[in-house]
Amino acid sequence: MQWHKIFLPEITELIEQRSLKELGEFLRRLHPADIVDILRDLPSADRVLAFRVLDKAKLAWVFSLFEPEEQEELLKLFTEQKVKEILLEMDSDDRAQFLEELPADVVKRLLALLPHDEKEITNLILNYPDNSAGRLITTDYMALRADRTAAGAIEHIRETGLDKETIYICYVIDKTRKLIGVVSLRDIILAQPSKKIGDIMNTLVTRVKTTDDQEIAAKMIQKYDLLAVPVVDQEDRLVGIVTVDDVIDIFEEEATEDMEKMAAVRLPEEEYFKADFLKVVRKRATWLVILILAETLTSDLIENYTTSLTSLVALAYFIPMLTSSGGNTGAQSSTLVIRALAIGEVGLGEWWMIIRRELWIGTTLGVILGSVAYVKVYQSLGDQTTGIAVGLALLMVVLLGNILGAIIPLIFSRLGWDPATVSSPLIATLLDLSGLLIYFEVTRRMLSI
Amino acid sequence: MQWHKIFLPEITELIEQRSLKELGEFLRRLHPADIVDILRDLPSADRVLAFRVLDKAKLAWVFSLFEPEEQEELLKLFTEQKVKEILLEMDSDDRAQFLEELPADVVKRLLALLPHDEKEITNLILNYPDNSAGRLITTDYMALRADRTAAGAIEHIRETGLDKETIYICYVIDKTRKLIGVVSLRDIILAQPSKKIGDIMNTLVTRVKTTDDQEIAAKMIQKYDLLAVPVVDQEDRLVGIVTVDDVIDIFEEEATEDMEKMAAVRLPEEEYFKADFLKVVRKRATWLVILILAETLTSDLIENYTTSLTSLVALAYFIPMLTSSGGNTGAQSSTLVIRALAIGEVGLGEWWMIIRRELWIGTTLGVILGSVAYVKVYQSLGDQTTGIAVGLALLMVVLLGNILGAIIPLIFSRLGWDPATVSSPLIATLLDLSGLLIYFEVTRRMLSI
Repeated sequence: MQWHKIFLPEITELIEQRSLKELGEFLRRLHPADIVDILRDLPSADRVLAFRVLDKAKLAWVFSLFEPEEQEELLKLFTEQKVKEILLEMDSDDRAQFLEELPADVVKRLLALLPHDEKEITNLILNYPDNSAGRLITTDYMALRADRTAAGAIEHIRETGLDKETIYICYVIDKTRKLIGVVSLRDIILAQPSKKIGDIMNTLVTRVKTTDDQEIAAKMIQKYDLLAVPVVDQEDRLVGIVTVDDVIDIFEEEATEDMEKMAAVRLPEEEYFKADFLKVVRKRATWLVILILAETLTSDLIENYTTSLTSLVALAYFIPMLTSSGGNTGAQSSTLVIRALAIGEVGLGEWWMIIRRELWIGTTLGVILGSVAYVKVYQSLGDQTTGIAVGLALLMVVLLGNILGAIIPLIFSRLGWDPATVSSPLIATLLDLSGLLIYFEVTRRMLSI
Repeated sequence: MQWHKIFLPEITELIEQRSLKELGEFLRRLHPADIVDILRDLPSADRVLAFRVLDKAKLAWVFSLFEPEEQEELLKLFTEQKVKEILLEMDSDDRAQFLEELPADVVKRLLALLPHDEKEITNLILNYPDNSAGRLITTDYMALRADRTAAGAIEHIRETGLDKETIYICYVIDKTRKLIGVVSLRDIILAQPSKKIGDIMNTLVTRVKTTDDQEIAAKMIQKYDLLAVPVVDQEDRLVGIVTVDDVIDIFEEEATEDMEKMAAVRLPEEEYFKADFLKVVRKRATWLVILILAETLTSDLIENYTTSLTSLVALAYFIPMLTSSGGNTGAQSSTLVIRALAIGEVGLGEWWMIIRRELWIGTTLGVILGSVAYVKVYQSLGDQTTGIAVGLALLMVVLLGNILGAIIPLIFSRLGWDPATVSSPLIATLLDLSGLLIYFEVTRRMLSI
């Protein structure tokens, strides 16, 4: 249901008629994500009108859904008072994410608008390392004491819950703010009203440290089907929580990262059009130059076989077919193994079973592709021996490609490196070199050239 | 915090001592996901003991977390009565996912154990298309009537909430089960106790149809930060809900699917070791054979330039360097564009901006890689003109690769096909052909051979 598309004409009309009251009522009913879609379609002047009728909590939410560049633009539309309101209403994680993209002087000016405690929190979050769980925390969590009753807890939640990011999961802390338990609103509601929180809470709390990688928090939430995971400091004191909605975006980012690595193109996290041209070129060129330098070795290798080539120039015809088949097979097996490692379908301990499996698959694929090559060569040259030689070389290259594609990610993983760094081009280049060597050696011996 | 590793020794001891009571208390405190980890490490006989002390709700949850093959094994450990209990306690989506993997006769036997209404629900879910939202629904959602008061609703939730998958989001339906609103437990709790649900509910309910793709449900939950999305039939009647925890797995599956397509290897959804050997070979071989058949065209092409090759055999030296550079560049740009399209960073409407951007990036990369090639050729042959000819050909191939890598996914997307189907090997093969043509034509003309 694309509410924003359904309502855009109506909203445009309300703005044109300057019916601010009805516009306000209208926008109040819409989800902030829909409001963002609508605002993006409106001319800048009309946007200001829409912003004016939103209450401050919703305005802050809408604002936090825009991209950093859009936020910077929007800032110019607001008075300092409005900016202050928005900043105060934003969730602490959204505020930190907004500020981290801005120039230092703007950040300083904006932080000065905040009261002391909010400024502290923001500085704290911004000081955690990039991609750490600490960067994602919201400090607006629901904390309870163990000696409250269930009924008392519901009362407390009713009174203080309005500003919390979630009230469905409550964290129980002791006097030193150490995390001692977790209790869901569900358990509180279903419990006897007189029961103590300490008696219904779960004391085995899954938690992550502020310095842990965001992926750990994400995997935690996935494994335990959590709505949020608590984040503690080195002394096990509760600092904030990371909620499931932030984690979904992480899974998408991690997958993008892995895909880019596998294609030997690791870009900054910016969106496609927002990534800086020169940065993109530099990052892409680095990999391409490394690969072409490695590939120059193939020319030296082929040069060594000038005698073979001059006595049978047809050997050159099949070079691309040979190298590409090896590379394609290697790309397949490495993708399968890298992905299986990334999502935990296979572990390093199973390395031998993986290799054995890819050995058999590689042999079967090699026989199939080698036969195709034999037919092609025989068709082109009418010579059976050359056909067999090329077909056999191709079988060996495909088998080698399949094994290398599986083994190299395993080795990377064993060395503690990210297996996704094993890009398909890297494997293809390795196979170009080893494949050509196999090709020229097999043909030289079998055809006595 | 890896609770299962911390507690495994203690649990093994309790089992050895046959201290079933303490074992039960111990397991009650652990999360089902941890219990699964522990059970996997136990010998089969000890597993039965652990299962015996779990209460039926937790047993069903633990059971649903095992893989289909493990579930089939576990079934043999249980009495028919136990199996019936587990099936009844399982969430309807987990039950359907478990049953869909079993042989038809086993499914029939198991379904016979269920009471009529549960059997109906399960059959309904199993009849939705593969990968549709209907396959993921749980029917244990919290439904409310609009004329209840907030206090009455809380009472109702307290009485009936125990079996619901979530009580945090309640759906308001009319007498014909049409979905007319949604209200969060948060809003109910924070509202005046005497307020009517009809007055606090949101009537603009985001929803998906049972037949919609699961990815649509996932994107909905991501966009609106939902805990669950309601699923309705063609008449807009509420059938069930899809919860956020199921959706996280979808994002992972979709990413795996895209990566596999990009490496020209699309496998069934089974895990790495569980995929059938012959199926894997057939699927992989299909692509590899298509690619090698396309690649045989390169041999015909090179054959056409036998004259060039016999007068300058050195031309063969640089074939792999040339084809691999084009393929690598194309793999980079296609990966970037495919991923940007998949996660919605760019739209088809921006096609011209994408091509313009990749045109400039391609030119820059071409100049860099062409220069490397020039140096290499000059170094090998000591001939400037050949160096310039090869360098120029390489520049053109890199530029072409970069553009094709961006354009082909856009064309696929425009035709309504999945852009991820544009695999890097496909682009590499196209570039091998066009690249060799450019190479031999440029060198033939410039070197007059």
